[in-house]
Amino acid sequence: MKFIQSVQNEKVKEWKKLTAKKGRDKAGQFIVEGFHLVEEALKKDYVSVLIVDEHIEIPHGWNVDNQEIYHVSSAVAKALAETETTQGIFAICDQKQLDASSYSRVLLLDGVQDPGNIGTIIRTADAAGVELIVCGNGCVDVYNGKSLRSTQGSIFHIPVIKGDLQEWIPKLQAQGITVYGTSLQDARDYREVELSERYALVMGNEGNGVSAVVLQQCNQNLYIPILGEAESLNVTVATGILLYQFCK
Amino acid sequence: MKFIQSVQNEKVKEWKKLTAKKGRDKAGQFIVEGFHLVEEALKKDYVSVLIVDEHIEIPHGWNVDNQEIYHVSSAVAKALAETETTQGIFAICDQKQLDASSYSRVLLLDGVQDPGNIGTIIRTADAAGVELIVCGNGCVDVYNGKSLRSTQGSIFHIPVIKGDLQEWIPKLQAQGITVYGTSLQDARDYREVELSERYALVMGNEGNGVSAVVLQQCNQNLYIPILGEAESLNVTVATGILLYQFCK
Repeated sequence: MKFIQSVQNEKVKEWKKLTAKKGRDKAGQFIVEGFHLVEEALKKDYVSVLIVDEHIEIPHGWNVDNQEIYHVSSAVAKALAETETTQGIFAICDQKQLDASSYSRVLLLDGVQDPGNIGTIIRTADAAGVELIVCGNGCVDVYNGKSLRSTQGSIFHIPVIKGDLQEWIPKLQAQGITVYGTSLQDARDYREVELSERYALVMGNEGNGVSAVVLQQCNQNLYIPILGEAESLNVTVATGILLYQFCK
Repeated sequence: MKFIQSVQNEKVKEWKKLTAKKGRDKAGQFIVEGFHLVEEALKKDYVSVLIVDEHIEIPHGWNVDNQEIYHVSSAVAKALAETETTQGIFAICDQKQLDASSYSRVLLLDGVQDPGNIGTIIRTADAAGVELIVCGNGCVDVYNGKSLRSTQGSIFHIPVIKGDLQEWIPKLQAQGITVYGTSLQDARDYREVELSERYALVMGNEGNGVSAVVLQQCNQNLYIPILGEAESLNVTVATGILLYQFCK
């Protein structure tokens, strides 16, 4: 059994770096916290290292055979925690890399900036049966603590990768996938379009929507009509409405 | 022109009380902040008092004839502000009281606890053409600063009132309105139900959903199928999906 007492330990410093985007990008890893997220990560074979507060017991049902485990002092657990009251259990996870191959239901995100929004969008896409999510260049890093918590584990249910949307769109189209943008201009009411079963949907930035250059690449742009006086819908809500339209 | 220099002024103390639920309940008023929300409040005749930082100019297009206006020092503006960088403009607004009379599209909220969620739900309901929102007893106060900001002005577009859902449901039913609950048990897939044009939809608490006693009063309970591995949908997203289903 490996045990770490001190917050000055080199391993702890290395793990702590994963709470910042720079450290995550460099290592190709991220850190999750709490029983629910760690359990989902284990089930889906994302976990490189499991870290447990010495006062915490690993739940009986978990399969941690052949799993590298570190027990740590509460001081170390607190140092790693991004929440105020930590559950004292963490996993170091590997970021996945994937190619465009065989996905029929894809969500592309163009400049989604709010960590809570991107997390909730991932959770919503999981519920709606999406098979792949590609986060374009302008998106907030999905591996930050708040985003990961907002996914409620869905980050481990479907592959979520970073990529250049302008490269992905033609690749998807070449495989017979119809790519739908979202826009208030030059777009059709989503309820009046016969949607393709093999689709990619592009959702955009909270304030500015999908960028013009990406919209031009799409096969068809959609909008959700506003029936009252609201100026717009929240991007997570709009994503849910559109993705469930593809489920009919 | 009325001017207040000191944060110790009695008016300022009175207004400041509206940043807490107790003060709002007692006065039957609430306070909003920022150009966008204040403008919406003015348009819809909600404003009792307009409060403006002495360094801020009231926009030319605004109709503030016959409007009681206080100019205040920046110290007073900062004392009233609930945001870190205030725009220095505030409105004291009256809470509306309404009866059940003639609404055809109603949203009932049962124990929605998160201020951001309830605000986004109000915004979504506005977009989807809802005419009345009733917040049941267990809901967070919609007049707190975070909720108001999350509505992005929709709080002034449709009446949002507090009420006892167990009293409202039979009243609405007596007017021929079909009341739909949301539940994972004893419920039908929302896509397979022929929805009534005159409806009330009940959305529930983030963790526990709609309470059992309320579900029993509903005419029909609905659920949104989960196609992937997510355990549930965020309540704001679920509200959007269901409300837009009524718009078909």
